Amino acid sequence: MSLNALGLMEAAAGIRDGRLSSAELVGDCLKRIDEVDRDIQAWAFLDRDHAMRQAEAADDHRKHGKATGPLHGVPVGIKDIFDTGDMPTEFGSELWAGRTPRRDAAAVARLRAAGAVILGKTVTTEYAYYNPGKTRNPHNPDHTPGGSSSGSAAAVAALMVPGAVGSQTNGSVIRPAAFCGVVGFKPSHGLIPRSGALELSRTLDHVGVFGRSVEDVALLSEVMVDFDREDLDTRPVARPPFSAVAASEPPLPPRFAFVRSPVWDQAEPVTREAFAELIEALGEACSEVELGPSFDRAVDMHRIIMEVDMAHNLRRDYQRGGDKLSTPLRQAIERGRAHLAVDYCSALAGIAPLNQALDHIFDEYDAVLTPAAPGAAPGIETTGNPVFCTLWTYLGVPAISLPLMRSEAGLPLGVQLVGRRSNDARLLRTACWLVRNIGRTRGSARRNVPSAGTNAAPRAEKRKVR
Amino acid sequence: MSLNALGLMEAAAGIRDGRLSSAELVGDCLKRIDEVDRDIQAWAFLDRDHAMRQAEAADDHRKHGKATGPLHGVPVGIKDIFDTGDMPTEFGSELWAGRTPRRDAAAVARLRAAGAVILGKTVTTEYAYYNPGKTRNPHNPDHTPGGSSSGSAAAVAALMVPGAVGSQTNGSVIRPAAFCGVVGFKPSHGLIPRSGALELSRTLDHVGVFGRSVEDVALLSEVMVDFDREDLDTRPVARPPFSAVAASEPPLPPRFAFVRSPVWDQAEPVTREAFAELIEALGEACSEVELGPSFDRAVDMHRIIMEVDMAHNLRRDYQRGGDKLSTPLRQAIERGRAHLAVDYCSALAGIAPLNQALDHIFDEYDAVLTPAAPGAAPGIETTGNPVFCTLWTYLGVPAISLPLMRSEAGLPLGVQLVGRRSNDARLLRTACWLVRNIGRTRGSARRNVPSAGTNAAPRAEKRKVR
Repeated sequence: MSLNALGLMEAAAGIRDGRLSSAELVGDCLKRIDEVDRDIQAWAFLDRDHAMRQAEAADDHRKHGKATGPLHGVPVGIKDIFDTGDMPTEFGSELWAGRTPRRDAAAVARLRAAGAVILGKTVTTEYAYYNPGKTRNPHNPDHTPGGSSSGSAAAVAALMVPGAVGSQTNGSVIRPAAFCGVVGFKPSHGLIPRSGALELSRTLDHVGVFGRSVEDVALLSEVMVDFDREDLDTRPVARPPFSAVAASEPPLPPRFAFVRSPVWDQAEPVTREAFAELIEALGEACSEVELGPSFDRAVDMHRIIMEVDMAHNLRRDYQRGGDKLSTPLRQAIERGRAHLAVDYCSALAGIAPLNQALDHIFDEYDAVLTPAAPGAAPGIETTGNPVFCTLWTYLGVPAISLPLMRSEAGLPLGVQLVGRRSNDARLLRTACWLVRNIGRTRGSARRNVPSAGTNAAPRAEKRKVR
Repeated sequence: MSLNALGLMEAAAGIRDGRLSSAELVGDCLKRIDEVDRDIQAWAFLDRDHAMRQAEAADDHRKHGKATGPLHGVPVGIKDIFDTGDMPTEFGSELWAGRTPRRDAAAVARLRAAGAVILGKTVTTEYAYYNPGKTRNPHNPDHTPGGSSSGSAAAVAALMVPGAVGSQTNGSVIRPAAFCGVVGFKPSHGLIPRSGALELSRTLDHVGVFGRSVEDVALLSEVMVDFDREDLDTRPVARPPFSAVAASEPPLPPRFAFVRSPVWDQAEPVTREAFAELIEALGEACSEVELGPSFDRAVDMHRIIMEVDMAHNLRRDYQRGGDKLSTPLRQAIERGRAHLAVDYCSALAGIAPLNQALDHIFDEYDAVLTPAAPGAAPGIETTGNPVFCTLWTYLGVPAISLPLMRSEAGLPLGVQLVGRRSNDARLLRTACWLVRNIGRTRGSARRNVPSAGTNAAPRAEKRKVR
């Protein structure tokens, strides 16, 4: 087996135990990239020699018996909106072509401190907004990988790298994870610092991660959680035990709250059918829960915040280089410029009471179960619709997409689980349980629900990766 | 000597040492109130029996040898925008007449934990905005005490209570302190929690204090500094040693940066003359420093934030009871409703770079020296102009007003000192030095600059209190 197919945790353990070297692992990843990336185009920047030098340095470090971090020698892809002091960071915009920051973003610095090899920069849509980049869906190049973390999702799905970092301001982690058939995890707002990353919206921007198992995203996200004085939404907290709790058995069988959410009318038939089967398979472990009318305005409130904050944060790019921006981005900025400040304040003030209302659900249920996207990946002229992620991004709650189902055409469908704000570890444990158990609960023939084992993701995409 | 004339620290020490009882002290304060408050009207709510019961309980507590806090048995007045669980809190508005909150505001709770007797609620202007309340200036009832913390400043000036709590969103502590001839101190933004207080603007609202010496405001503010999960701008920090540092001798003679600020054209002749003499008296200890053009927009940016946040936070009062609001308040809310969100975001984003620019001044100087107000207190149809406070409130830096000078008509003129953000203790030490030393530096005859001793404030107002 080629080492590039190893999961992040397996790879880290192999290097730690001396069963494989970082250079071998990174070498296999680069070989895989050479084989498949011409069709997928997941990378915005990749310097093979620089990657190998990092891997060799990691191996040297270990040979000398020095302390190693939890990701020692493991390659990771970084969405090209996070500054890297040794590689360009271009935000997916020609306005920033050749931009070479001097410092690592906080999240990247924490990965390096954990020993990771920064393999390269993955393709983002223009400014992490909607306009598609060059990346294609590994399951079918006529389909979008989703956005805006297109390259990170596709690279992990296509076994080019075991894990990658992305960001989500609306649906930019959960949606591409669902479309590419990998696990995407967006921890609670304020857990992973965002300084040194492109800022669209302080309130909505989240750092997220991609892997091929829940355990892998738990480990990858855990090492980045930290307090950072430059990110005013982070707090001094102990490192959360994501991996340890995710790997543990729930003390009681989890209970799921199936939430159609206020945007269910946008769910495609394939999603409606797949969820009907999934819920049947879960049986008594799942109940349908309806959100109150106070949730109906969340999508509008999210849009106001996102458009205003983008208009503010991208104001210089808009003023100086507006004609170099895509029409959808320019229009979003222009809508942002027209919003009233009191509407913006109301939208910000709406977050806390909705989280309080949601708490009542989490008093009874371990996780909300809801679609990750309206359907499978659409064509390449779009990056797909983020609307099933919007509410959860607005609320800053942790969310994870699991590649448990697929469409008749064989494209992945994501199951989104959502947890209580700051209870990320419990959400991960519940997600592990679901991956282990779904498909075993009942024996009936189900088109959409696979009889998944412990690691549904790689299997799903192995059949499809081109 | 009546005990009501004691400073806060003296009173606390007297009770601690058993030289006086809280009941005697509170009794003398109530007697003073009976004597002078008919003309001054500093109190929005005062229940004499309830105050005496608190004092007697404090004395009982001490008699039983129980632990006592730094303000044990000392009476304090609270501006009527801070919730008190045992007294009404009416925001200076008939819309809230008879409102009886169930919990103390965080700042009040911390005072009680320090042992303070909450003597009563002091008059605020309507919603802590401009529309005058009933309070008159103790130095001359034809003049305003300033606002919005009118009653707190007047009560301390008139020896009704040794210390009082106020708030400042523009110039609501520094200005009334200057007009009433007491020391007013506004600590750095985010030091004293604001939960349970009327919110005008999260960005601009500060809790502040009044006393008759720098040492007194140091002690009174120090006990309220705390982390509070409900005030998202507070941080977990150790209790700052305001009192200890304020009482210490500066290791080097302080240097003052005289800053005319972008609003110097609004300084009245009396202020220009007084400051010319003060600066001459300071000699080499003071240099004039000019702020760069980036500071010119601060007053506008402050106004946008304040109007927008007021429009948001007072939206229900405006919608349901708009005709019960004063015209100036209604107009401010209406201006707030018209601002664009991107202008609001720009105004918020302007704070950090101006603080960075200011840091260069504080690398060279211990404090900025600048007027507290354009002139002495005007008549009672207004609460005076806060514009000399606006920049410092916008920046969230600590500021203190010292009653070092007076007008020809005998009304107090405030000298405002401003410190580096979060370096409050150093500002207090510098302020103590200035009070001790000004007047001794040169012997020339100066009309405005008194030869102040260690405690300029009580002397100034003792001559004038009616």
